[in-house]
Amino acid sequence: MNTYTYEKRRETLRALLRARGLDALLVSHAANRFYLSGFELLDGQCNESSGRLLIGAHGRDWLCTDARFFEAARRLWDEDHIVVCQGDAFAQIGALIKDKVRGVTGFEAKTVCCHGAQRLGLRLLAADGLVESLRMIKDAGEIAALERSCGLNHKLMEQLPSLLHPGCSEAELAWNIERFFRENGAAELAFPTIAARGPNAALPHYEPSARTLLDEECPVLIDCGARLDRYCSDQTRTFWLGGTPAPEFTCTLELVRGAQDAAIQGIRPGMSGAEIYALAFAFFERHGVEKAFTHGLGHGIGLETHEGPSLNPRNPEPVPPGAVFTVEPGLYYPEWGGVRWEYMLVMEEDGARIL
Amino acid sequence: MNTYTYEKRRETLRALLRARGLDALLVSHAANRFYLSGFELLDGQCNESSGRLLIGAHGRDWLCTDARFFEAARRLWDEDHIVVCQGDAFAQIGALIKDKVRGVTGFEAKTVCCHGAQRLGLRLLAADGLVESLRMIKDAGEIAALERSCGLNHKLMEQLPSLLHPGCSEAELAWNIERFFRENGAAELAFPTIAARGPNAALPHYEPSARTLLDEECPVLIDCGARLDRYCSDQTRTFWLGGTPAPEFTCTLELVRGAQDAAIQGIRPGMSGAEIYALAFAFFERHGVEKAFTHGLGHGIGLETHEGPSLNPRNPEPVPPGAVFTVEPGLYYPEWGGVRWEYMLVMEEDGARIL
Repeated sequence: MNTYTYEKRRETLRALLRARGLDALLVSHAANRFYLSGFELLDGQCNESSGRLLIGAHGRDWLCTDARFFEAARRLWDEDHIVVCQGDAFAQIGALIKDKVRGVTGFEAKTVCCHGAQRLGLRLLAADGLVESLRMIKDAGEIAALERSCGLNHKLMEQLPSLLHPGCSEAELAWNIERFFRENGAAELAFPTIAARGPNAALPHYEPSARTLLDEECPVLIDCGARLDRYCSDQTRTFWLGGTPAPEFTCTLELVRGAQDAAIQGIRPGMSGAEIYALAFAFFERHGVEKAFTHGLGHGIGLETHEGPSLNPRNPEPVPPGAVFTVEPGLYYPEWGGVRWEYMLVMEEDGARIL
Repeated sequence: MNTYTYEKRRETLRALLRARGLDALLVSHAANRFYLSGFELLDGQCNESSGRLLIGAHGRDWLCTDARFFEAARRLWDEDHIVVCQGDAFAQIGALIKDKVRGVTGFEAKTVCCHGAQRLGLRLLAADGLVESLRMIKDAGEIAALERSCGLNHKLMEQLPSLLHPGCSEAELAWNIERFFRENGAAELAFPTIAARGPNAALPHYEPSARTLLDEECPVLIDCGARLDRYCSDQTRTFWLGGTPAPEFTCTLELVRGAQDAAIQGIRPGMSGAEIYALAFAFFERHGVEKAFTHGLGHGIGLETHEGPSLNPRNPEPVPPGAVFTVEPGLYYPEWGGVRWEYMLVMEEDGARIL
């Protein structure tokens, strides 16, 4: 993305701020910061920040960071509008807002901690989700990046059968997957790879073990993704390793693929996250297995692995054209394991297209 | 660590809560959660949580998580004291506190976002740093784990000369470092590797580039660490690649090593973070280069790469025996680069020992 892309995004945000009666927005969420500036996509740790933006609804924008990032910041931001904070960053940002903003400043109440908000020394208005609402609708450059990222994931999935063999541990398999991504251009994993054998596949978030070896006849669930050109990928497949899948595996796989297909065929732009979730849930319900479907149907994906829109029963918001999201139904049985299958899709004018 | 370790830590915390007049503490910070329970060291993204603990000063403790983690949770926590939240987790945690706690509940105001605090539906007392104060003093098992983790980092540093050669890009070098860590037992990097050639070394947080190649005569800064047995390592070295280091490099390296040595020799238990910082700063000041020392002297390290104690001019707290921290002075010159040198140390009764 070039400088103009970020400027254009800030202009779009400005219009949104004015429509909401806000004179400025303090942007703290890391992916939102990067989306609007190109500055630092990631923070070091969750309790650290590389910097925050103060976006004015009418005028100039400020980048608040610290000395460690000053050189990086001035490579892409007007030096006169960089504030180098030292020590209590929130107090210094509060002073900047008092000095520069006439009117109401919004802030991201889901990102700013209570301590930070108190240190600001002034009350801001909770205004979450504004940048996220822009990020949800991907532009052509972002969709192209997501297609490249998902394309690498497809290549991995093609290679997978050659990486799956009896005697290989879950941890070894996960590392071979990571190596493939990294040696083919990915900057990092989008999230820790799940490689789960048998009953471990019933844990939707599972850490691969060096002690659990794949054997002659077992189910293996692989959920993995990488960050390529800044954008994340995320796909899941579940395999039977060996000659003859157990009947419960075959049957569960058919149900999961059936639910996924029903959802994908039924998706139309403007349906809510809850309505899309219901497409898969209704399929499982018709087959009496809905209790084994223990998570949402999918999530938006982009600069973050998990972003809007959420496909779950609690999301009444419509999913617009340009949204990119996963569809990943799963059924889980602690006795023997589980099956999940996941694609990434982009919402188009007449339905969802698999990436 | 076994179950007993976590129970003992919760008992120590209980005594601390009672001494502070708290009847319970809501623990949200991921590393604190793991330290007290063994449940999930990491969260998926900074705006997500695998779970939170409610620690009672007098009685039973609760683990609040969601359906994705229930199977993992009940492998290590009494099932009757697991709350499976769905949707608005904070509202459900607020209800749990209302139901179970008689008296004052503290919370981690540096971890809970403003939105979450509001959804709790009751006002809790900010009580940051309690678990961190326990974590700062490492027990024998933790020091052994940190020694293993730092030991792997030393092995990497021994290998480094063979990985450094003209024509190798920064990104390739970073990947070879990561491969070494992972293929020798590390679960992941502790933080993104910095591999910076020439002027790039002047950016304390720099992302290695595939387009920047090492050449015949240049300075290269490597700052890297991995997570082994849950514990992080972090070391920096700066090399001259080629036959004859430039004079400004040799001179800067000598000053940095001199400042580091002055600090390490001068450290005594009970000195404050600010006093330890001052040992290195005073050395630089005597040589007139203190303006090029743009960051703190070091940071605690353990389950997180950055934790207490901070060695910077704003930390008046004493550094106790059992603390493990880095000492990493650096001098930076945007024209040609920078030099940083970093060790990990443990505070002992008579001074600091290099790990």
